[in-house]
Parts: sequence; C-alpha cells; structure tokens
Amino acid sequence: MKKFFVHVFIGVFIVSCNNDSVKSGVFVENISELEASINNAKPGNVIFLKNGIWKNVQIKFKAEGVENNPITIKAETPGKVFIEGVSNVKFGGKYLIIDGLHFRNGYSPSDAVIEFKIDKKTIGNHCTVTNCVIEDFNKMSRDDADRWIQFWGRHNTLKNCYIKGKTNRGPTIRIDLKGNEHINNYHQIVNNHFGPRPPKGGASGETIQIGDSYSSMSPSYTMVANNLFEECNGEVEIISSKTNFNEFRNNVFYKSEGSLVTRHGNYCTIDGNYFIGDGKNENIGGIRIINTGHWVTNNYFYNLKGKSFRSPLAVMNGIPKSPLNRYNQVTDVVVAYNTYINCDAPWQFGVGQNLDQKNVLPPSEIRSSRPLRTLVANNLLYNEVGDKSPIVEHDQADGVTFKSNIINNKNVEFVSYKGLEPKVFGLNKVSDHVFGATGINDVEPYQGFEFEKISNDLFGNSRKNNNIIGAIVSIKDPNILDKTKYGPSWYSDEVEAKEPKTIKVSAKDSFQSKIDEANSGDIIILNQGKYLITKPLVINKRLTIKSSNKTKTVLYYAGEENSSLFQLHPKGFLALENVYLKGTTTQQAFASLKENMYTHFGLSVTNCEISDFDFALKVYKQSFAERITFKNTSISNCENGLELSEETNDKGDYNTEYLTINSCQFTNVKQNVIDYYRGGYDESTIGGNLILTNSSFINCGAKEQNGILINTRGIVNVDISNNTFKNNPVKLVALLWGAKNNYHVNNTISNSGKILVEEHLKLKLMY
Amino acid sequence: MKKFFVHVFIGVFIVSCNNDSVKSGVFVENISELEASINNAKPGNVIFLKNGIWKNVQIKFKAEGVENNPITIKAETPGKVFIEGVSNVKFGGKYLIIDGLHFRNGYSPSDAVIEFKIDKKTIGNHCTVTNCVIEDFNKMSRDDADRWIQFWGRHNTLKNCYIKGKTNRGPTIRIDLKGNEHINNYHQIVNNHFGPRPPKGGASGETIQIGDSYSSMSPSYTMVANNLFEECNGEVEIISSKTNFNEFRNNVFYKSEGSLVTRHGNYCTIDGNYFIGDGKNENIGGIRIINTGHWVTNNYFYNLKGKSFRSPLAVMNGIPKSPLNRYNQVTDVVVAYNTYINCDAPWQFGVGQNLDQKNVLPPSEIRSSRPLRTLVANNLLYNEVGDKSPIVEHDQADGVTFKSNIINNKNVEFVSYKGLEPKVFGLNKVSDHVFGATGINDVEPYQGFEFEKISNDLFGNSRKNNNIIGAIVSIKDPNILDKTKYGPSWYSDEVEAKEPKTIKVSAKDSFQSKIDEANSGDIIILNQGKYLITKPLVINKRLTIKSSNKTKTVLYYAGEENSSLFQLHPKGFLALENVYLKGTTTQQAFASLKENMYTHFGLSVTNCEISDFDFALKVYKQSFAERITFKNTSISNCENGLELSEETNDKGDYNTEYLTINSCQFTNVKQNVIDYYRGGYDESTIGGNLILTNSSFINCGAKEQNGILINTRGIVNVDISNNTFKNNPVKLVALLWGAKNNYHVNNTISNSGKILVEEHLKLKLMY
Repeated sequence: MKKFFVHVFIGVFIVSCNNDSVKSGVFVENISELEASINNAKPGNVIFLKNGIWKNVQIKFKAEGVENNPITIKAETPGKVFIEGVSNVKFGGKYLIIDGLHFRNGYSPSDAVIEFKIDKKTIGNHCTVTNCVIEDFNKMSRDDADRWIQFWGRHNTLKNCYIKGKTNRGPTIRIDLKGNEHINNYHQIVNNHFGPRPPKGGASGETIQIGDSYSSMSPSYTMVANNLFEECNGEVEIISSKTNFNEFRNNVFYKSEGSLVTRHGNYCTIDGNYFIGDGKNENIGGIRIINTGHWVTNNYFYNLKGKSFRSPLAVMNGIPKSPLNRYNQVTDVVVAYNTYINCDAPWQFGVGQNLDQKNVLPPSEIRSSRPLRTLVANNLLYNEVGDKSPIVEHDQADGVTFKSNIINNKNVEFVSYKGLEPKVFGLNKVSDHVFGATGINDVEPYQGFEFEKISNDLFGNSRKNNNIIGAIVSIKDPNILDKTKYGPSWYSDEVEAKEPKTIKVSAKDSFQSKIDEANSGDIIILNQGKYLITKPLVINKRLTIKSSNKTKTVLYYAGEENSSLFQLHPKGFLALENVYLKGTTTQQAFASLKENMYTHFGLSVTNCEISDFDFALKVYKQSFAERITFKNTSISNCENGLELSEETNDKGDYNTEYLTINSCQFTNVKQNVIDYYRGGYDESTIGGNLILTNSSFINCGAKEQNGILINTRGIVNVDISNNTFKNNPVKLVALLWGAKNNYHVNNTISNSGKILVEEHLKLKLMY
Repeated sequence: MKKFFVHVFIGVFIVSCNNDSVKSGVFVENISELEASINNAKPGNVIFLKNGIWKNVQIKFKAEGVENNPITIKAETPGKVFIEGVSNVKFGGKYLIIDGLHFRNGYSPSDAVIEFKIDKKTIGNHCTVTNCVIEDFNKMSRDDADRWIQFWGRHNTLKNCYIKGKTNRGPTIRIDLKGNEHINNYHQIVNNHFGPRPPKGGASGETIQIGDSYSSMSPSYTMVANNLFEECNGEVEIISSKTNFNEFRNNVFYKSEGSLVTRHGNYCTIDGNYFIGDGKNENIGGIRIINTGHWVTNNYFYNLKGKSFRSPLAVMNGIPKSPLNRYNQVTDVVVAYNTYINCDAPWQFGVGQNLDQKNVLPPSEIRSSRPLRTLVANNLLYNEVGDKSPIVEHDQADGVTFKSNIINNKNVEFVSYKGLEPKVFGLNKVSDHVFGATGINDVEPYQGFEFEKISNDLFGNSRKNNNIIGAIVSIKDPNILDKTKYGPSWYSDEVEAKEPKTIKVSAKDSFQSKIDEANSGDIIILNQGKYLITKPLVINKRLTIKSSNKTKTVLYYAGEENSSLFQLHPKGFLALENVYLKGTTTQQAFASLKENMYTHFGLSVTNCEISDFDFALKVYKQSFAERITFKNTSISNCENGLELSEETNDKGDYNTEYLTINSCQFTNVKQNVIDYYRGGYDESTIGGNLILTNSSFINCGAKEQNGILINTRGIVNVDISNNTFKNNPVKLVALLWGAKNNYHVNNTISNSGKILVEEHLKLKLMY
C-alpha cells in the first residue's frame, strides 16, 4: 500500500527548486503502487521508491508537471534503489524527474533503457534524469541493439549520471530528431561521468549520437557540457554529432579511444574541451571535422598521438556532391584559440581522401573535395620534442587560411607555413595534464569575422582586455579529473584493490565447484594428478588457473562432441598457465558461448600445450574479447586452430580487438589454423589486430579449403614477423592488405607457399 | 565641382529616418564627383545625382553609415536619373542606401547590376536599394550570365523597386551564402514589383534564387514579402529557395508561369501568399515542395491549372540518400489553412517519381523516397466545376496525414480520402480573384503540433477566438493588384495604348529608311512594284509589313551569300503578311543576328511565299523568340527550311518557346526542313513547343543526313497532326518522345518513311 507522509525529503526538495510551496511525497514499494502513484501524480509530487532491488520493472512515467513544480520519481536513498532484470523507463509528459536510481544486472526489453517517449503521441518534454547510474545494462547479444538513453521531444536533461560498460550495438545515448516535435530540442547532457565503454569490435559503439544522416538537416541545439568521458573506447566516434547547432563545451575526454566528430550537420560549437592522451596510444583522438560552419575554439589537447582520422584536429575531405549519408565538404570552419601540448602532427587536412584506393572503391567513396573557406587562427602549439610536420596535408590545404598561430618546436625545423610562426615560449604547469604558456603576450591575435564572439578562454576568463594566442589567457586549476564534479553525488567508480585468494584443486575435487567458490580475481592452483573432465568448465569471472609446479598438469577432456573444456561466459576472463589440455578430437579446448554473450570475455594462455581437439579456440558470432593471447604454447593434432570468423554479415564487426600469438608452435592443425575475420568496407574501423610473432607452423593447413594458412581478411592491423613456416601444404601463408597496417617481416618459409600483399582489398560496402 | 547645399530634400530625409539631426546633402554631376563624395561621406550624408543620363558608370559605394544615420545616393528627382551603358553598383560598408535610380539601355560589366559586395573583404551590410527601376538591362547574349541584384553580407534590403525584362541567363536576384559573413543574413526583399520576365528558353531564369545546393545547409533567414510577381515566366521556378529558414509572406504571384519551390534547404515558411492563374494556362504553378520542415500556411490559390511539377501544391518524391545537388526526401512538412478555389487536382504527391523512366535514367534520378511525416490539415477546396481527383498520387501518399480538410466539389464524386471531407458551402467574392468561404464555421480545425503558431489568417486576422478552416477567417479586400503597393512611387508600368501609324513604301523608296522611320507597332504597306533588295533589312522594333492588296508583292533578295533578307534584331518583332520572298539560293529569308541577341525577337509569317533561299529561317545560337509562326505560307526550292538547332551544348536551352506551322506547303526543301532542338536532361524544362498542322511536305529531305524530316529532338511538346507527307526520301518523318507531350494524329504519309515514337529518350545529364 501507498504510504502518504510528510518527510524530511520534502525540505530538501523545497531547497532544490527554490520554491516554498509544500510538496507532497508518496512512498511506493512495488511497481503497481508506482503506477498508481504516477496516475495520480500532481505537479510538485515526489514519488519515493523503497530501497532495494526492483526487478523487471517497466516504468511508464506519464504525468504532467509544470515549470518549478515538476513530478519526481526518486530513490528513498539515492543509490539504494536498484533497477534490475528486464527493465526500462519511458517518459511521457512534461516536467518529470527521475532521481537516484541504479540500473544494473539487467537489460531493457525495448530499444532503450531510458526513453523520453512512450509512444508517437506521448512524448517527454522538460524531463530530467539525474543522479542515476547505468552499469553493464547490456542486451543478451552484441547485435541486439539498443540505446541506454534515448532522447525525444524537447528540453530534456541527463545530468549527474554515471554510465559505463555498454558493449552491445548502439550508441549509449542517442538524440532523435525525426519529427517536428523533436527539433530545436535544447536537450542538456551535463555533468555526467561516462565511464569505460570497451571497444565494441565494429561500428555503432558511440557514447553520444545526435541525430542521424536522415535528420542531418534539422536544427538540434543539443548541449553537451561539463561531462567527463573516461576510456570511452567503443568505436572511432565518441560523440557523433549529426545535426545542426549543437554545442560541446567544457567536456573532458580522458584517455578515450575515439574523437568528437561532426559527422553530419553543421554550425556546431566545440569550445573549451580537454582532450587528454597518454602520450602513447594512437587510438586516442581529438576533433574530426566534416561539413560546414563549425567553430572549434578554446580547446586543449594534451599528449595525443593519434593519426589521420584520430589526429588531434582531423579536417576531412568531402565527396563531391556527397550523398546524404556520406561525407560533405568542409567549408566555413573556424579553428581558433586552441592549445596543443605535445601532440604529434596535430593538424591534419584532407583526411580520408582515399584517392589511392580509386581502383577498388566506387566514385562515391573518393573524397576529392578539399576544405574551403576554413580559418585556423590564434592557436598555440608546444612540443617538448620537436615535430617535423605539425601540419599534415593528406590533400592540399589550399582552402585553409592560417593566421597568427605560434609554435614552440624546440628549434626542430618543420615544413614552414605562412601563419604558423615558430616562437620561443615557456610552459607553466597548472595541474596534471594541464599547462599554460608564458611569454606570448607580444603576439597579436588575428581578428577574424565574428571573433569578438570568442569572448572567454578555456577557463572562462574574459578575452576582452587581455587577449592572447591559445586556449588559456590566465591560469587557474580546472580540476578536470576531480570526479566529484561529474556523475551522482552518491557514487564512486573507484574500487578498492583486493588481494587475490588462492584456491587449490586436486584431481579428485569437483573442479567446477572450486571455480564457483572463487571470486573474480582469484587464483586456482592445480595440484598434480590425473584430471578427467567430462563437462565444460564454466568461466564467468576473472580467474587465473595454473599448475602447482613447473610440470604441466594434464586436463583430459572427455566431454560431448562440440562441447568445450573451458566455456567462456560474459565477464569470464581466463588466464591459463602451464597446463596441458588434451581432448578426444571432437571438442573445443576454449570456446565462447554460442549465444547470450551479453558482454566481453577474455583469454590468455601461457606455457600450455593443447592437443587432440576439434578446435583449439572457437569464438562464436556476437562474442567479443578485447584481448586473446597465446604465448609459449603448442597447439598440435587439432582439426582447427584459432577460429574467429563468424561475423560474416559484413557490418564491420569482429570478435577480438587484439589477437596476440607469440612463441607458439602449431603442428598438424588441419584447417583454420588462424582464422580472424572482419567484413564490410568501413574505413573508420581501426581493428582488429593480429600480432603473430616468433612462432612456428609445421605440417598445418592440409585441409584448408581456401589455401591460405593465416586468414586475416579485413583485419586492419596485422604483424606477421619472425615466424617459421615449414611443410604446410597451402598456396599462401597469408594474404595481406597493403593499404592498411598489414606487415610481414623476417619470416622463414619453406615448402609452404608465400605471403602475398594485395594493396587494396575489395570489401562489401556497408552504406 | 561639388555644390554643398542645405536643401528641401533634407527635411524630407529627416522625416524618413525619424531623426532630427541635420543632414548634409551633396549634389554631384558626374562619376568623379560622385566618387569623391563617396570617399568623403559621413553618416547622415545624402549624395544627390543630377537628373539625366549617367552612362557607363560603375559605382563603388564604399562608405560607413550608422544605424539611423545612413549614407544615401539619391536621384535629384526620383526616376529622372537614368543609369545606362556599361554600368553597375557595388556596395561595401554599412548603412548605405541607393534611392530613385532607373537602370535601362545597358548592362553590367560584371556578374551583377547591383551587388552587395565590392570584393571579398569589402561587403555591404545593412544596405538598401529602394525606389529604383531595372529594365531590360540584359547582357549582350543569352549565355552571358549575370544577376541584376546579387546579395551578399547581412541585413540588406531591396524594396519598392520595379524590375522587368531579364532574358539572359541567371536569376534576376540571387542571395549568396558562401562564407560566414553571408549566413543568417535576414535580407529583406519587400514591396517590389517584379514585372514580366519572359521565358528564357532553358534553365537559370529564376526571379529569385536564395543560395545554391553547395550552401543549402546554411541558415539564411531571407524574407521575401509583400511583392507582386507578374508574369515572371523565366523558367519553372519563380523563386528557388535553396537554404534554410527563409520566409515567403504575403506575396502575389499573378499569372506567373512557374512555382515557388523549396528546391534545397529546409524549414521555410510560406504564409499568406496569393497564386493567381487565368483558369487556362497550365504553366502557371503554385508551390513545389522538396526537403524538410516547411510550413505552407494561409496561402490562397485561384484558378490554377498546372499539373505535376506545376500543380498548386506539388510534393515531390526524393532520391534515396540524395546527392547534395539533387532531390532530398520530403519530411516533416505542414500544409495547413490554405484555400484552393477552382484549381484542378491541386494536391499532387510523389511528383517527379520517374520510376517509369528507370531504363533511360541513372539510379540517381529515380525518386523513390516518398514524403514522410507530412501533415495536410484545415485546408479548404472549392470547385465551381467538380474535380474527380483533387488529390493525385504519382506515388503513394502513405507518409502524408490528412486532417480536417474540406471540399465543396459541387457534388461531383472524387476518390475519397480520410481527412478530406465533402461539404456544401458558399463563396463570397471579396474582389477580382479573391473569394472567401461561408458556412464552414461548424468544422473543427485540427490542432496539430505547434498549430497555435499559425496565429493569423491570410489577411492578418487573429485565429485565436474565431478560427476556421482555410486561409480566410474574415473577409476584407486585400487589394492585391493595387500597384501603388509595389515598386517605386514614381513609376507606373502601364503604357498608354497608341494608334499604329501606317507607312507606305514603294519599290523606289529606301525600304530601310522607311523601316527606320517607323515606330514600334507601326504598319508598313508595300505598294506593288519590283523590289530588289541588296542588303539585309534590319528589324529592331515591332512592325507589320504587308502588301497593299491581295497580290503578293515580290521582294527579290540579291544580298551577299549567307546574309538574310530580314535581319531580326533584339526587340525586332516582325509580322509579315502576303509577301513573296525570292532569293538567289545562297541567302536566308529570315535570320536572327549571329551575336548580341541581348533580348528576344519574334516572327509571324502569314500568306507568304518563300523560295530559292539557302535557309527560309535561320535562328542562331543564343537567340530566342517567344513565338515563331508560319501560316498559309509556302516554302519551296530551298536548301534548308526552318533551322533552330544550334543550342548543342545541351544545357537545356532552345531557340523558341512556340514554333507554330499551320497550313503551310514545303516543297523541295532539301534538308533541315524543320530542325528544332533542345538538349540536356532536365525534366523541369517544359518547352519548346512545336505545333505542326494542316501542312504538306512534298519532295523534301533529299539531303537530310540523319534521315529524319521533322527534327524535334528534346522538344517537350510536339503536335504533328493533319499533315500530308508525300515522296520525301527520308527514313522517318519524325522521331517523337513518348514520355513527354509528343503526339501525332491523322497524318497522311506516302513514300516518306514513318513517324516513330520512342518512349524514353536518353539525354545528356546536365547535373
């Protein structure tokens, strides 16, 4: 039953909305009470959800609040209400707030976890989600797409939320503009903490997508401000802006593998953002520009090493008279008052030209339209180690004007440009990652058209009376990594380091029980003995399994045909060391689940022997591991080797980001010795990665139907070096993709065909 | 020298700007004085141009006025200052006004007659052209393109001007948005009178073009309001809106052959305009919709008979993922509260689908994307004569929702649609062309999203408390054709009817002197006699030339080879009656000039005989006649007949709108008997027109290289009926274009090949 009460919360509420009318609170304990309360809700009402787990709840929040008197659904104690199971929330109405919920251990039954629409006629406007967490709330399979927050309507807000762990297809947040009800939306995405989104292994892994190509003509006016994006590595675009007049202000992109991309739409403002790299990772990008009229001002770029698509400033070439869903020419873009510290070749123009691929690509993919009427002015570059080419022209930057840009290149010469002048100046450390320049006051900033509108610097200091080059006029610590500024007040993403437990197993124990008993991170030690295993070992947590001493414990597997000795479940990360796995020729040594791989697994195999299996490794469709590693391991007498090739719908997906094989021996593996596949033409994909080194392949590939020993079709990064191939009855050792990062060095090949490099691979177009 | 004076004008000026500071006036007599005055001009200055003709003046109006204190260049007496010769005006600066000038007898040396830019850096902003006339200010040849008013910058205004007679290539007015200086321009084009713009005979004859496909993503906010468009027949688009957020309000489109078209760009407002037809002319169109988000409200459509592209409301299909310069899908369009009186099939959807031409067109020309999320509501249709199909679906209108539309179809049944309900109601005549409905107050208007923003009706009456279906809530006379509301106060386009003078010529007179002596409209009577003419007769005015009695006077022409007996100059309109023209086989009976045909000519030949010429008619490239007519005339023993086929660059151009041949005899014409050509694929072209009836062709085409007697390739409208073709040694009498309006009926053909109809013609793509 409902309990009506006047409560301590009410006082809090009054303060929060600066309104001294008395609010009424309702306390509900289950979904039917909640529904009844929603039905009866009046402006100013607060509906409190009882602390605890709310499982399988589909909340239709249909109500009508008013300005300054919203209707709120709130956790009894913020962070103590858990939404789990098959659950979602939909808004329909005005001035509605969801506050303090924690979504976990579940997934949405619909296209979205939180959606600002109930149906076509029942749209949320002026609605807010605040102080919530959504964590690992993935659909059961990677291709089952959804969004976690789906915006519709106008004036909706997502603020102070923590969101992490999306691995299935679909942007974490999407704003939809199809229909006049959804344009000019002025949505706010502010003060959120976007925690890690691991690589999806293919497209459609954005953290925020605003519109799509079909609504790219629509005015959006979405504001994305003061958010922290931390390790948002889902795909090449962290934010994909696809509509007009969006604003991106004062966000921090921290070690996120991707870029803020103006993919479609025009006239966006990208002002005062931080792009922080680690000085090594080439996947961490900056801002990539397509289309017309964007202003990139007051941004700060630090320690970025991305290239081409992922360069700190990537200005693309367009397709002449581009189709709606491809790449318009860049025109009328302004890049002004930005600071680049220790970034390699930060300005790249004519990115994605593709002219060298004109024989394998349709004309619609050749980007020959260079940027026009683009102004790059008053920017500051500082390189601790001088950069020989701070500007890279993939195509001529003849439509770009450079004015009053300065660079301290530590006296290293670089290709000179009118408008980028070398200058000696110093740096002041403001805080970790943030440095301001000193001694540049004598350089006069260029006054471009409407530059007076760039009125403040990165920190909000006025430029009026004290203007200088670069993002920072005067220094103060922006505390960009102070996590109390982002996400819910009640939540911290910091986890306490825990000492791993060691669990000993002997041959007579139930191995699976011991695994079940272990916590994530624990170590299982196998005492010597004869292990006969008849059912798959389920791995659904992070475990290390190793032999008790240097002698490899032998695990004999006598399970069913097509079953696997180690069955890798979502969140199952197995490190196996110093173990001998022996099958009876019809099973798999390691395999993912055939379905319901709702999030990632991982596998590391070191100092092991694997023999007499049907597959050494079988990764099923829609399974994804960030890393799969085999080291100092022998694989012998198997029908198949490492098989990761089921993503044949050619939508750009693949099964592991990094497949690393070092110092391994493959002997008498008959087919699919290594079969790693990515299909679909999508130049923005940057994976997968095969590193195959110091290994030997002897008498392998006898049954390989396509005649290629190492299959890497469509994989972007391949390194085959220092291996030995001997007596493998195949036509080719490998067929590599020259235009991408496919290399082979120092391999010894005898009686095994050869390694062929095809410069341009013809792939199925995805668009 | 300059004369400084305090002048009666100043008082006038003060009133006009509501500012009582004393203004200084400068009086200038020539261009150098003007230039000096411009150089010295201060805010508030008025520079008066002395009355008279200013020839070959190129005015660079570079100065800096301020708000409420502009700098003005003004006619001493408005309308008494004539700008002639090679002249133009360019603005650079702020708050500048041009007032009271009359441009005539000349052309611009640059791309524009009046341009709001001097160079890339010197742009006009807040500048105004008012109270001016631009008349027949054409370049010397049709393909030499220009604009008469070229907008750049922001907040510029064209008001109370009269503009007519553009025949050369290029829109009369163009707004350019390339560059951030030119977007969000808020230009005003208001209270102008756009007088006749004759058909151009091909594309690029718009009256107003706002942006282009390359700037179609830019926000424009151009306002076109309260203008009269009278016989603006230049091409299929009277106004071509190609950017975003433009507004078209309260304009009158009076008997103008074309439409207001949202060709590119989105979110335009088309509110309160009048589209007035004559109940017959199918070229007079209404509003044609492409792209997203337009609102078509409160418009009034009367007596329109246009179809397909020219229907009162033409909603096009788009090309899937259209290239930038082609046709985007229609989405999110609102058509509400409009009134259609006596319009045939006023609502046409899926216009331009082209699916039937898929074998001859590239995929990029097949428009298969139907309108989406489009709402047609609260409109009123009245048909004095019932219409069986008020709605035409060229493709399914399944993305269109109809709500609360009513039709009085005089009980004639029509294909029924949910949302278009038959209703009996009356009409009240408000004035010529304008009628309001009575008895419709019982129909509840549909309340669509943001319909509350349609706050007023066509006449500005509030809809708040008294809302009804259709454009008119309550009646008052809008005086739409009261010409004192449009154009300069000092100018009237009404010309006094003048009785034609009759001039008699005898064989011994100088024929040319008599022609020179005649005024436009006069009649020259040829007394009987033997006329031997050795030089071309120059026709540069409207003249009728005829024999004094029923006996055909013979004009023997012995001019040079390749010269023409009648040389048709720009503005030369010749009606020749009852005359025999006889050459010596090497000349032309009629020809246009080879060059400098800066405006149209015309030709009508009745009851004549033409023999022994190289060409009966030779129309040179870039010459254009609205009508060329031969009636009851024989053409015999000529090498060539009627030759109008030089527009071979295939840009859609042709040489006459109507070529009419009725009751003529062609005998022994060896080639190009009739050769009339239009090249280039451009489905929006609606010309030319060949009407060939009741004529005979005997022993013709002996030397015709292509084997076709009547050549009409690319001509859209062809009617070949009731003719006799006998003993013509050709393969085909004609090759017609089935998909267009090409017909042949009741022809008698013997020993002359046949008439072939090819359904779809493959033409060179123009885009």
